[in-house]
Amino acid sequence: MPVNLPELNPASLTPIKGVRLGWAESNIKKLNRKDLLVIEIADNSSVSGVFTQNRFCAAPVTLCKKHLAAVKNNQVASIKALVINTGNANAGTGEQGMLDAITTCQHLAENMDIPVESILPFSTGVILEHLPINKILAGLPLAVANLKNNNWADAATTIMTTDVAPKAYSTQVKIGREQVTITGISKGAGMIHPNMATMLGYVATDANITQSLLDEITKEVADLSFNCISVDGDTSTNDSFIVIATGKSNAPAITSREDAGFKEVFNALLETSQYLAKAIIRDGEGATKFITVNVNGALSIEEAKTIGFSIGKSPLVKTAMFASDPNLGRVLAAIGYASRECKSLEDLDTSLLELYFGDTLVAEKGGRAASYKEKVGQAIMNKAEIDITVELHRGNESATIWTCDFSYDYVKINAEYRT
Amino acid sequence: MPVNLPELNPASLTPIKGVRLGWAESNIKKLNRKDLLVIEIADNSSVSGVFTQNRFCAAPVTLCKKHLAAVKNNQVASIKALVINTGNANAGTGEQGMLDAITTCQHLAENMDIPVESILPFSTGVILEHLPINKILAGLPLAVANLKNNNWADAATTIMTTDVAPKAYSTQVKIGREQVTITGISKGAGMIHPNMATMLGYVATDANITQSLLDEITKEVADLSFNCISVDGDTSTNDSFIVIATGKSNAPAITSREDAGFKEVFNALLETSQYLAKAIIRDGEGATKFITVNVNGALSIEEAKTIGFSIGKSPLVKTAMFASDPNLGRVLAAIGYASRECKSLEDLDTSLLELYFGDTLVAEKGGRAASYKEKVGQAIMNKAEIDITVELHRGNESATIWTCDFSYDYVKINAEYRT
Repeated sequence: MPVNLPELNPASLTPIKGVRLGWAESNIKKLNRKDLLVIEIADNSSVSGVFTQNRFCAAPVTLCKKHLAAVKNNQVASIKALVINTGNANAGTGEQGMLDAITTCQHLAENMDIPVESILPFSTGVILEHLPINKILAGLPLAVANLKNNNWADAATTIMTTDVAPKAYSTQVKIGREQVTITGISKGAGMIHPNMATMLGYVATDANITQSLLDEITKEVADLSFNCISVDGDTSTNDSFIVIATGKSNAPAITSREDAGFKEVFNALLETSQYLAKAIIRDGEGATKFITVNVNGALSIEEAKTIGFSIGKSPLVKTAMFASDPNLGRVLAAIGYASRECKSLEDLDTSLLELYFGDTLVAEKGGRAASYKEKVGQAIMNKAEIDITVELHRGNESATIWTCDFSYDYVKINAEYRT
Repeated sequence: MPVNLPELNPASLTPIKGVRLGWAESNIKKLNRKDLLVIEIADNSSVSGVFTQNRFCAAPVTLCKKHLAAVKNNQVASIKALVINTGNANAGTGEQGMLDAITTCQHLAENMDIPVESILPFSTGVILEHLPINKILAGLPLAVANLKNNNWADAATTIMTTDVAPKAYSTQVKIGREQVTITGISKGAGMIHPNMATMLGYVATDANITQSLLDEITKEVADLSFNCISVDGDTSTNDSFIVIATGKSNAPAITSREDAGFKEVFNALLETSQYLAKAIIRDGEGATKFITVNVNGALSIEEAKTIGFSIGKSPLVKTAMFASDPNLGRVLAAIGYASRECKSLEDLDTSLLELYFGDTLVAEKGGRAASYKEKVGQAIMNKAEIDITVELHRGNESATIWTCDFSYDYVKINAEYRT
């Protein structure tokens, strides 16, 4: 079961003016389950995305980038629809995969009477199998017929693969007297170590944000949310994170960082994205612990993040967490070898650093803290939520990453599931 | 049980003239087991070492580097003894740890009547616990009294921690009419992803090799053996690899790469080191498969090695191997995200690469090979030894890495064992 992930209450999700969602059961991998989602976006919305850097990126990822470029080059006015299928990733599928992604967009374009370049396609599920394109084409009209503005909870369920629970979040902020709403959904449980973004994340707001500013915000928010999580260190071929700003609220447009409401909307987008990213970790394959790693006092954010992930990806740390074992040694070893991936850490002075489990100092001066009692560490490890903090005392930069433990069930799930 | 690791036959290990080994049972962690080893080395031998790059490197590693430097600076004539304890790594032990390592060397120096700087100390086992120094000091005279030239098999057993089986190897080559012998031992099963060398590896030869040439050879051999293996991607705090050349054979001295016998001795040292490195993988924690990843056609060795380890470290690939699942998709995804750790791979053209399981082409042109039958892939995966080959078709460099699968037992061993 997911670690402290509250059950999704559909009533908690506020619709976004200018966004409608429709799903279908198109039998892509299993019968009688929602597996195809269409998201309709109002004219002249700003839409930004960040995508996996996996060189084996899926055909739909390549097509998404092409269609977003078409907006930038004024070939089409704006992105008008997203189409997402689960059950099949359309990755490692060669030229046929690209044809299938284009065909999907073409049929949806005809059905919705919009330009094909105004559609962003996404796929998630099994790699290396060709899309069952006829099933998807048959499902598209059903999904379009089903478009509603309050379908967010069903949308979150539709995009699940090995996820145990749907993931969605809503929040609101005021710009002056005007309310702005932000609602998002995400999916993912394994093959999670995003490079640009996670498996799939979609966040929409009715705020009015110019395209160029939304592009900046999307990258920054991704770096502080979906790019800070790891289940297993494997970067998916299909990671995509999309932010939609429809501009349908009555709040004034935000065209620069100095404009009224920028900070509030940025923070609300970040809050939503962090909730959704952390929800993926809470529902990580086989997860029994939710682990937050804070790294402070680094010379650069890269240093802090590398150490965070060095701890968060270590199979030895993750199996110790599964066993509720306050194993300082494995954490220190993982800090020590982080220099493999970040050259500037080669002169890390380990005698200066402090390691905390929760609020308890557990290691300093290159060894165990004299004040540390293992009983205290054990009590902290017994909890389902564990905070690890590293104070490097060499600079002023920080990073936080979120990860989960490594359990028998992780092996079981991945020895049995064919991605 | 280790994967295809032949049971060690003590008679297969040829003594090295100029090397004697003695062990003791000093109750460091467990009663009634060999846990302390002294290796005596003849005067004027060449001794070279490479060590972990973990910033939390253990006190003995720091002291080893200092004493090797003392030889270089002519403060002492040569290295005369190694002392190795298991059961405790003396890592993350701060200033006390350094004092304990020095005290160990001092007592051995007095007992053997040699300079303290001519001793290299090594520790392996639990991290963050202080050495039980009195037990070690009591054991040293017993180990010295026990020095014999045919104790190699017992030495291999003495240095084990979570290893299931001892690891040792012998080979001989001729230089002209003169026989040269090489014998080595290694240990390690978890926290294995060497950066300079593995947990512990010791190789000795009676060839006569100058110090400066042996330094070069040691680095090159380590890069092609112990630096090509990964069990779990965790780099230990104590990795050390030592090559000893006593010069006691009758073969002529080797002072340069052009000298008679250089090639033969280099290849024999490499053969020995690769056997010992692969033995660590065969005995990897929970291992049921021995996996060889060959990467050819890269622009650089770094590219080839990064892709090899990207496949070899992926928990998704390793759990699929455990399940004997010919999961091409996970292998392709791991190739695709290797650019995270090697910038030059950012322009990798995945449509050019070919992937082979054994001799069978399984993927090409960005997708599954048309000729590939899953039944064939399944038969290959069912074996205990699996070869994966990636042909990149972008350059002329190659690398081979060795790894094992990820099983329930890996989680079990590491959830229960306090390193």
